[in-house]
Amino acid sequence: MEFEEFELTKEFRDRFQQALDERDGAFIYSSLEEVNPADITALLYEFNNEESKYVLDLLSLQVRARIINDLDPETRKNFLSIYKVEELTEVINHLDSDDAADILNELPIKTSEEIIASLDPDLKSQVIDLLRYDENVAGGLMAKELIKARDNWTVVQCIDEIRKQAENETKFYAVWVVDENDKLLGRVALQQLILKDSKTLVKDIIEDDVISVETYLEDREVAEIMRKYDLESVPVVNVQGQLVGRITIDDVVDVISEQAEEERQLMSGITEDVEEDDSLWRNVRARLPWLLIGIFGGMLSARFMGFFEQELAKVTAIAFFVPLIQATGGNVGIQSSGLVVQSLVNPSYVDEGLWKRLMKVFSVALLNGLLLSLIVLGATFLFFNNNRLSFIVSFALFCVILFSSFVGTITPLLINKLGFNPALASGPFITTTSDLLGLTIYFLTVQVMI
Amino acid sequence: MEFEEFELTKEFRDRFQQALDERDGAFIYSSLEEVNPADITALLYEFNNEESKYVLDLLSLQVRARIINDLDPETRKNFLSIYKVEELTEVINHLDSDDAADILNELPIKTSEEIIASLDPDLKSQVIDLLRYDENVAGGLMAKELIKARDNWTVVQCIDEIRKQAENETKFYAVWVVDENDKLLGRVALQQLILKDSKTLVKDIIEDDVISVETYLEDREVAEIMRKYDLESVPVVNVQGQLVGRITIDDVVDVISEQAEEERQLMSGITEDVEEDDSLWRNVRARLPWLLIGIFGGMLSARFMGFFEQELAKVTAIAFFVPLIQATGGNVGIQSSGLVVQSLVNPSYVDEGLWKRLMKVFSVALLNGLLLSLIVLGATFLFFNNNRLSFIVSFALFCVILFSSFVGTITPLLINKLGFNPALASGPFITTTSDLLGLTIYFLTVQVMI
Repeated sequence: MEFEEFELTKEFRDRFQQALDERDGAFIYSSLEEVNPADITALLYEFNNEESKYVLDLLSLQVRARIINDLDPETRKNFLSIYKVEELTEVINHLDSDDAADILNELPIKTSEEIIASLDPDLKSQVIDLLRYDENVAGGLMAKELIKARDNWTVVQCIDEIRKQAENETKFYAVWVVDENDKLLGRVALQQLILKDSKTLVKDIIEDDVISVETYLEDREVAEIMRKYDLESVPVVNVQGQLVGRITIDDVVDVISEQAEEERQLMSGITEDVEEDDSLWRNVRARLPWLLIGIFGGMLSARFMGFFEQELAKVTAIAFFVPLIQATGGNVGIQSSGLVVQSLVNPSYVDEGLWKRLMKVFSVALLNGLLLSLIVLGATFLFFNNNRLSFIVSFALFCVILFSSFVGTITPLLINKLGFNPALASGPFITTTSDLLGLTIYFLTVQVMI
Repeated sequence: MEFEEFELTKEFRDRFQQALDERDGAFIYSSLEEVNPADITALLYEFNNEESKYVLDLLSLQVRARIINDLDPETRKNFLSIYKVEELTEVINHLDSDDAADILNELPIKTSEEIIASLDPDLKSQVIDLLRYDENVAGGLMAKELIKARDNWTVVQCIDEIRKQAENETKFYAVWVVDENDKLLGRVALQQLILKDSKTLVKDIIEDDVISVETYLEDREVAEIMRKYDLESVPVVNVQGQLVGRITIDDVVDVISEQAEEERQLMSGITEDVEEDDSLWRNVRARLPWLLIGIFGGMLSARFMGFFEQELAKVTAIAFFVPLIQATGGNVGIQSSGLVVQSLVNPSYVDEGLWKRLMKVFSVALLNGLLLSLIVLGATFLFFNNNRLSFIVSFALFCVILFSSFVGTITPLLINKLGFNPALASGPFITTTSDLLGLTIYFLTVQVMI
């Protein structure tokens, strides 16, 4: 059967809404029967909690669990609040351990305790183990479902072990080989199990140079390792080197996408995880903090310029170049911090040290500064007929480019050292800083040279 | 064996460089023997082309091919220019078809024609087929290596087919089932082949609702589909529905990472794919275009303010609020465009249409505008003692917020419609536009109200 992407048209949604209003289960069931769960998830964002639950209750538990797992955490938290504990337990029993733990983490403590108490015994112990880890480290990302083999087993023993686990629909890419203390020895790819004779010993087909990650490794580092070494799954070991779980590439794809989204928001000066179609108030609130900081910066600028009222009254044209100075400062700052953020996300291979880095940034700024100041010097000579002012503007511009480069480079490094996302430095933060910096440099130059 | 990430210390690099200078092959070979090819790739960025080639020639062809494939295209193009055609052919013969095609695409036409002519026959026909596709569509991303089965085959026949292909080290996740015309019917996961009895027929274990993509689908859409449906590999079909290749998740991870990097650069106003440790001149050049545009905008602003010299001379304080107006305009513009870019990258499920979207943006801007104008009105009353100016500033601020929201929303949509990356609108482009817009609104208000 060829795949056709399910298209959620306005017509279909309206027809569906009507069926929902009439609680027309037959229509709903038949129209969703052939639809991929991922598409049903998308559809649910269109309806309220009661309606969504009504739809889900018509579907199989498997599909229901899959859909609830696909919802974004915020929506899910709100949605699951209308579920009874028994209903939740049923759903969670159909999830992989990592997904189960994620959802339990979002629920109120009391509810999650009740659910855990009545989970299937295997899942229960797996989940309890997983709940110990932070969300954003390897331990919080891993699943416990994996197939362990010993190196004196034969291929056929491995296959038997797979068969035991195969009742749940988890995807496996490999069998993990451990010693008697559960210490990871290596892996055997499924492909190998298929190709080798059933009596072949695991120790003869083991890949023993596997890359593993420790439980406390940060999720973005896990992503980086899986990307760099092209891994479809990576085993997670504890400090004793014992195999405790595995992370598959699909989880990491989500980590990478979320990271990119977080960066984009920080760089745009949006302070909450918000989307255009979220509520009005949420949209307003997500934008306010940086706007307020910008306003505060602007008021400071106004006060600051007030000190130079005399100079401004004498030579009004001084004011003309404030936008030029500030815009260039802002652009230089954003460019510098953008490059630093990039190098922090994709670390370069040999870290040359802060000093060498600053020297490089300084040279780039020196060259750009010289070039641009000369252009501005020429242009102001030509258009404004005020030699002294031309010198002041281009000299100040030169200084602003140097300083903004420096601030744009050092700020994300500092923010990163302090443990925050360096992309924070690459948005309105740096523009506001550069604005104030540029103004100060410009008016100091004015005061000295006019 | 537990994995230890290879750490490239300055000491090791220096020792390695010395070995290179002395052409001490024994040391180099022994120090790289246990190192993962991905780490050797990283090491090569530290040396010149001749040195790198010397190192690679010491390694096996397998590893050499893997490393050359891992290099970034720019570096590789430069590096491979010192290779002879026969050497290149040898390397490319050890690559998967998709990687081979990528590298051939980077070489001068004459060289690549010569290489293709002497490739292994299978790879040759695969590569010729792949070279027809653009780099950034499914056809350009796919590999031809895949295992085709018929639905009347048994499990054991599938396994024989896998065995035939197993000489090359390609990873397989599934067997693809096709009819006599190569039309895709479905897939059988490797896991199934392991678990089912060897006489089971493919038609009894086929998953027939597989998601496939067509050859011309854009790479970012392929990534989105694989992410949404959690696929580790996706079959590629032509317009006739015939199976022509497959894309695996590791290729898509690279697409996602590159996309994020491209966005970050556009948002930072960097016009070339550049990294901090690239050459000085390259760094200067990548930054110049947006700085020049900013300077041009600044000069325009200066000229524009020149028209209001009389007003400025009368009330110098008018100038004080230029930074406030411009900073807020810039922030609002960046926030709006940031949100639009986000919604274009992760499309919402039902597109409400442009009109509804603009109304929403307008409401958010109205609320933020009112709030911020009131704050500024209060603050200017308090600190500047000029009632009329306070009114002018806060009224202009209100208008600037409304207009910048509008421009910030519409610009990325337009840029996207024109086929460019909308993130372009979310950097210095929008700041420069907002600066000019803000200044115009402010001084028009001044002229009318003063």
